[in-house]
Amino acid sequence: MPGSPVISLTTDFGSEDPFAGVMKGVILTINPVVRIVDITHGIHPHDIKEAAYTVGMNYRYFPLNTIHIVVVDPGVGSGRRPLIVSADHHFFIGPDNGVFSYLYQMHRESAHVTHITAAHYFLSAESATFQGRDVFAPVAAWFSRGVEISKFGDPVDDYVTIPLSVPVLSSGGVLTGEVVHIDRFGNAITNITPKELGQLRCSDTGGKEGLRVRVKGSTVAMKEFYEQGGDGGLHALMNSSGCLELFVFQGNASGTFHIATGDQVEVVAG
Amino acid sequence: MPGSPVISLTTDFGSEDPFAGVMKGVILTINPVVRIVDITHGIHPHDIKEAAYTVGMNYRYFPLNTIHIVVVDPGVGSGRRPLIVSADHHFFIGPDNGVFSYLYQMHRESAHVTHITAAHYFLSAESATFQGRDVFAPVAAWFSRGVEISKFGDPVDDYVTIPLSVPVLSSGGVLTGEVVHIDRFGNAITNITPKELGQLRCSDTGGKEGLRVRVKGSTVAMKEFYEQGGDGGLHALMNSSGCLELFVFQGNASGTFHIATGDQVEVVAG
Amino acid sequence: MPGSPVISLTTDFGSEDPFAGVMKGVILTINPVVRIVDITHGIHPHDIKEAAYTVGMNYRYFPLNTIHIVVVDPGVGSGRRPLIVSADHHFFIGPDNGVFSYLYQMHRESAHVTHITAAHYFLSAESATFQGRDVFAPVAAWFSRGVEISKFGDPVDDYVTIPLSVPVLSSGGVLTGEVVHIDRFGNAITNITPKELGQLRCSDTGGKEGLRVRVKGSTVAMKEFYEQGGDGGLHALMNSSGCLELFVFQGNASGTFHIATGDQVEVVAG
Repeated sequence: MPGSPVISLTTDFGSEDPFAGVMKGVILTINPVVRIVDITHGIHPHDIKEAAYTVGMNYRYFPLNTIHIVVVDPGVGSGRRPLIVSADHHFFIGPDNGVFSYLYQMHRESAHVTHITAAHYFLSAESATFQGRDVFAPVAAWFSRGVEISKFGDPVDDYVTIPLSVPVLSSGGVLTGEVVHIDRFGNAITNITPKELGQLRCSDTGGKEGLRVRVKGSTVAMKEFYEQGGDGGLHALMNSSGCLELFVFQGNASGTFHIATGDQVEVVAG
Repeated sequence: MPGSPVISLTTDFGSEDPFAGVMKGVILTINPVVRIVDITHGIHPHDIKEAAYTVGMNYRYFPLNTIHIVVVDPGVGSGRRPLIVSADHHFFIGPDNGVFSYLYQMHRESAHVTHITAAHYFLSAESATFQGRDVFAPVAAWFSRGVEISKFGDPVDDYVTIPLSVPVLSSGGVLTGEVVHIDRFGNAITNITPKELGQLRCSDTGGKEGLRVRVKGSTVAMKEFYEQGGDGGLHALMNSSGCLELFVFQGNASGTFHIATGDQVEVVAG
Repeated sequence: MPGSPVISLTTDFGSEDPFAGVMKGVILTINPVVRIVDITHGIHPHDIKEAAYTVGMNYRYFPLNTIHIVVVDPGVGSGRRPLIVSADHHFFIGPDNGVFSYLYQMHRESAHVTHITAAHYFLSAESATFQGRDVFAPVAAWFSRGVEISKFGDPVDDYVTIPLSVPVLSSGGVLTGEVVHIDRFGNAITNITPKELGQLRCSDTGGKEGLRVRVKGSTVAMKEFYEQGGDGGLHALMNSSGCLELFVFQGNASGTFHIATGDQVEVVAG
């Protein structure tokens, strides 16, 4: 672990309560030199799937060896296990409830998963309801100080995965995916990536320009950047995370066109 | 003061305005190596009581000698005094309007309170409306650099305390407390702690399992962790701060059962 | 550039999405020792004017040589240029869409503007929709490591400015400005500063006490601090940023008196 370790936080704590601040206090008490960065505390309460996508799509913008704490944990205090996941030169700490499913899907061969059992690294807790503070924060802090993974517990293979929707290509040449996130600007982000689009047989002239995207009864064309959709209508582009995204230029696609998480999106070669 | 000082912030500034960011700029201008952590900026506007509970219940998760700035300050600019409170090996800086009442209640004997008067540590202010930026931030920053408390002003004993509700045990064996906070998940946190519960004469078989909690006409049982309340109904547990909390598993207790801050909660031995 | 550089962030990203966190990850990957401070992520979506005021009114509370990233960027990916602005011993990085207009207005003579073209400092992007992550964050991080401004591109003079409303004094002695921001407490901040007020011929006895402020059909008096407005009515004062502000003590001026951004405010000598 190099000199200036980084710990990131992804939770459903929101911005009103002191939960995240308290975790940072615990971390700095154990490791005063670690850098702590909030990825987001805006995961919808208890939405494990959203957390899985968020950490899986964003961890790689952090320094190698960053320790990513993920706390979306409705089952806190029950039998579900605390885990350390090692994948792609990053580390992930959180509950064994599926929050790491997108990581497992991307790094099925190389992910290494440890069941955290070494309770002497935990805060002596007063209750079983805040393991973010009592288990994940102190384990991350000790780990950032160089304690080896094997000191925290033994490897496991039977970790929990939740089904993540995967785009499907029909024999008729229709690629069907779904909206997985609505962002602050009302943009609707889908699970369709260049990999899936590559399966569509585009006409010779096409490329992305040759694709048509259908959602909520509308058929829209692909653009390269937001300003190209200057007519106030619904448009699509490949966004900054490499996902197909529906947008209204300087507007709110989700609000105006009633697009929500889970809605079906189809792509066909034009 | 050890090498890597920490300053925490607890305010009612919300997350939309630049107030907290500006305080951090002022702090880093004076002490470029201090660590700054947000506890929360989500205190309800002008809610001194909520601020008193928040800082009093959470400061101890931070490193010893942390300097906690608390800015909930409707009387800013009037005669109310700026204070440094020293208690339990932590320091607290904020207005003399009651925000430290819960600290005083916990550390009545040992708290040491200083009236900040040394204006040469202040920012030269343009107005009297933002002492968070002009007084509390620079004083905390200079203090974090090792300036002694006595340099900021003289001790005072007549600091302001606001009445904080204290649970009451009736002769009939009913312990009555109240809801003091609703968190992001809709959990209703009360002011009832193990100390008060210990006053209830439980049956031999009981412990916490023998207790019954009454709120808004419902009588509910105690659980150990959230998932045990798997029926969607209202339940209670001792939460991570050591307070009695009402919850709905994966639901919203406050919303579903119309529980609000100030509501009465009764506990009886079963 | 001194030892401990600071980068500030001002964006319209809100607090729910991982955009700001990802920018921090990118910055720390390039410069692990830089300090990162959020000024705000609460600029209204695409509100370039609000961003211009926010950064222009608050940058000076940060250490000299702070690098302020501003990302309010509806035209991201189109032809609009990325810029570094050097002014008043601070640096500013963001799109050439007017977000620096208030800075230009204050430092017309001394501002030095560079068009960022050195793409080898950019992240290799997958799309053209998130230059905060792919251009502004890495350029700021490399700049904080000491790369000279001239390495990023050439100076330009034809940068974009947007019209910012300027208070006007009529021949009849009425100073007319407008509300430019509503803060979390419902205070209505105007663009009227001491400079403009100095143009009013006050009576000999007057100072600020002699002024009368008219808004939405009400005429209100000037106070020195909030608590002086103890009657629950609308009042005015010069706020902590040096701007005329309308407020209700412990209330919400905007909500109660229906005051919004853009509303006209008049000041006359009493």
